[in-house]
Amino acid sequence: MDREKLRQIVAASGADALFLEQDFLRRYVTGFYSTDGYVICDGAACTFVADARYFEAAERQLSGGDVRVVEGGFERALQLVAGQKTLGVPFPFISRAACERLEERGFRLTDCMPALRDAMTVKSEREIALIARACDIAEEGLLATLPRLKEGMTEREAAAVLEYEMRMRGADGTSFETIVAFGAGSSVPHHETGDAKLRFGDAVLIDFGCKVEGYCSDCTRTFLFGDDGRHDTFRQMYAHVLAAHELVKETLVSGMTGREADEIARGYFRKHGLDKYFTHTLGHGIGLQIHEYPVLAFRSAQTLCDGMVFSDEPGLYFAGEFGIRIEDSVYLCEGKVRSFMHKTQHALLVL
Amino acid sequence: MDREKLRQIVAASGADALFLEQDFLRRYVTGFYSTDGYVICDGAACTFVADARYFEAAERQLSGGDVRVVEGGFERALQLVAGQKTLGVPFPFISRAACERLEERGFRLTDCMPALRDAMTVKSEREIALIARACDIAEEGLLATLPRLKEGMTEREAAAVLEYEMRMRGADGTSFETIVAFGAGSSVPHHETGDAKLRFGDAVLIDFGCKVEGYCSDCTRTFLFGDDGRHDTFRQMYAHVLAAHELVKETLVSGMTGREADEIARGYFRKHGLDKYFTHTLGHGIGLQIHEYPVLAFRSAQTLCDGMVFSDEPGLYFAGEFGIRIEDSVYLCEGKVRSFMHKTQHALLVL
Repeated sequence: MDREKLRQIVAASGADALFLEQDFLRRYVTGFYSTDGYVICDGAACTFVADARYFEAAERQLSGGDVRVVEGGFERALQLVAGQKTLGVPFPFISRAACERLEERGFRLTDCMPALRDAMTVKSEREIALIARACDIAEEGLLATLPRLKEGMTEREAAAVLEYEMRMRGADGTSFETIVAFGAGSSVPHHETGDAKLRFGDAVLIDFGCKVEGYCSDCTRTFLFGDDGRHDTFRQMYAHVLAAHELVKETLVSGMTGREADEIARGYFRKHGLDKYFTHTLGHGIGLQIHEYPVLAFRSAQTLCDGMVFSDEPGLYFAGEFGIRIEDSVYLCEGKVRSFMHKTQHALLVL
Repeated sequence: MDREKLRQIVAASGADALFLEQDFLRRYVTGFYSTDGYVICDGAACTFVADARYFEAAERQLSGGDVRVVEGGFERALQLVAGQKTLGVPFPFISRAACERLEERGFRLTDCMPALRDAMTVKSEREIALIARACDIAEEGLLATLPRLKEGMTEREAAAVLEYEMRMRGADGTSFETIVAFGAGSSVPHHETGDAKLRFGDAVLIDFGCKVEGYCSDCTRTFLFGDDGRHDTFRQMYAHVLAAHELVKETLVSGMTGREADEIARGYFRKHGLDKYFTHTLGHGIGLQIHEYPVLAFRSAQTLCDGMVFSDEPGLYFAGEFGIRIEDSVYLCEGKVRSFMHKTQHALLVL
């Protein structure tokens, strides 16, 4: 990332240097992915400390850029901050044990996550492009999966096909465990994909996403696998969820709080006496993590602004019967909501 | 898990109650998987605090067992420990922010992870069976993938096929990001699977695994995609890695330390002047996490004993040329090493 932006984060944290050992933060700052390593940033320089497993690849990818690569582990990383008093570490992500290990060496710790999060919540053009790619791949993967759904197939098999189709289109992996729910399973918002078999007339809820260079997509579609003629209530409820979903897209504007955004959907459902079936929050930020800031929820005082990426995912759940959720990954641009999702239909699909 | 075992963990931690908010620990204690929630255990009872998304599923799965399910979030979890002084939390896995949130409410915190880890490192018969299943699926997935490898296919596409084949056989997902490395990419121990294309004569290194009910498998195979006649050195080095891998299986016994285990392979390579190319450690524990205790490494004083599951994964890496790693998930039983891997060959495979 930008050296000046990084300098500001260090300054805003009140730290002499950032000491980062979390995968997604190392990746955010350097662009390089590894399962281990340390990134040290003071106002002037940024260094990636990689062990033997990653040193060669890190040098190759980062050479010529702003980030210096040195080989070593924790002790090597400590040498780079020798003489510094206060280290900025991310309190919500660093473990108690890791804190103690630094404090035993005499460092004072301060939380750098508020400053890092402010930066990470507003995406750059490059980040928006990567998320857009992850969303395209997710939608194309679903479109390739739909004709392969067959009666008797298990939820797990459907997930296997979808994940394969996303992978073949360039995804690095899923952004979270794919949820495929058939029939009454859809009434559990976080259903665990299992061995239930697809039957004619089932409601099907699929909540899925993939990663491109670490950036996530998040999408949910609910549809019918054939119409057995007993879906009048389902169709009514689908229309309500879609109306709430679209209302958010139309009326959410930059400057609103997360609470106000959530209230667009919740208020719509309340007006129709359905709010008690909307058992989760409207949405969450999306980036290198599948759940990050901003929070679009009843309690959220966060202000939404241009460049933020989040989910618009209202849902209604009728225990033991069915559930419906319609989710796009969206972002704020020029004050308004733009969706990343253009390839799959939002109107009720009957296969 | 066993109530008496849990009581011992609480006691050994010096805690009045355990306060667990980590996915894999909630799953270890209750058997129920969720992305959120709290598990509270004192000596007498165990309670799962689930929010609306998981409450229904948790109640269904846990009813009739030792674990009580209540609906709520953090505040509800706090009510359950009201009046307690010391909470056991896992210092290596709880965040600084989560600690502060509990300390602000007046709780003293103590690390329950040493006691939990002692319990988790020695697997039950049920856990061994789940890991065995995850290993079977991984090997069967690889066997189904091999005939589908074609010239011109990318590393990512090969990973897609392998992950699909594991999923279709009942895997819940991968246990880590699948590593597929073609040609010189294999010389990077933690190569990032990318867009390199498979060519005739390439060395192929695949490091992969899957999960069954949260339990991981871990396997690496290295082979040739056709023999272009320029592989004499590769064949020699393959024989050495295989010899080291087998030597570990034959001579590692319960009661050895992690360091002694590592030295079996490292000493073998040293005798042949190759130890500088063995750039990582021999192995790591495997369970609900892909990397857990015991550590089989130069610095590890941990004693290996019956019921422990870990990887046996010696390797040799020649930068820019090729790398070879042969890895089985294994466990200690009646003092000796037993491998979970019986379906794929260890001798050099030439496709």
